[in-house]
Amino acid sequence: MSVEEEILEVNRRFYQALSDLDLEAMTGVWLEEPWVRCVHPGWPMLSGWDDVMESWNRIFDNTAKHQVSPDNVSVRLFGEMAWVLCRERIAASSSAGSLVSFAQGTNLFLTTASGWRLVLHHASVLPVEGSPEPAPTVH
Amino acid sequence: MSVEEEILEVNRRFYQALSDLDLEAMTGVWLEEPWVRCVHPGWPMLSGWDDVMESWNRIFDNTAKHQVSPDNVSVRLFGEMAWVLCRERIAASSSAGSLVSFAQGTNLFLTTASGWRLVLHHASVLPVEGSPEPAPTVH
Repeated sequence: MSVEEEILEVNRRFYQALSDLDLEAMTGVWLEEPWVRCVHPGWPMLSGWDDVMESWNRIFDNTAKHQVSPDNVSVRLFGEMAWVLCRERIAASSSAGSLVSFAQGTNLFLTTASGWRLVLHHASVLPVEGSPEPAPTVH
Repeated sequence: MSVEEEILEVNRRFYQALSDLDLEAMTGVWLEEPWVRCVHPGWPMLSGWDDVMESWNRIFDNTAKHQVSPDNVSVRLFGEMAWVLCRERIAASSSAGSLVSFAQGTNLFLTTASGWRLVLHHASVLPVEGSPEPAPTVH
């Protein structure tokens, strides 16, 4: 397995844990450090293992059923660090029906004694497919 | 000047170029490679120097006057790569008045023969200060 494949495998485990609402699996993906960072779509940045895991716990508690699938995945190595960039397809289903939305994900992985671990996740809301192109501004 | 100070100086030049709507200064901050990436708030990911610069050009053409100031800035080194994380305070003014909004920025810099260069910028919309906390979901 190449280094890139190892990193993509951890990235797959991240989205599988998210889809399964599995906090233990999510815990195993992240590096347990006070400096890891996480930005959920529309949220301010969370700092540190404790706050990041608490946020996943709250999200999992408030999500009945969903499937988060990465597509357009790319990986790039920079020595001890690597990025995985992907679009996240989020399919949520309930008794009221199903809803598909998209987010753009930036995931940073660091190589450690116990393998590649997630140290930063930044996801942002994407426009619904087929909607007009966003106005060209930064705000 | 420490390595961290060098990186923060390039980060400051990025936000100054953005505030000044200065495409030449913006150009000098980025690494000119086909694999650099940029996500403007609410936009899909742009790939490669050409598309990224074209997007700044369009943004600058469509922005009359604004000031983008980073706060809560943190920097962390990972060998040849570094991240700078910050909140972006965007103050736009026009004849109709002024508007302040916020975004969360993740900036990745790579060390090169010509200094530290921006290789990824991911910015996402933040809730207006004082607005209710976002619902704890990923979508």
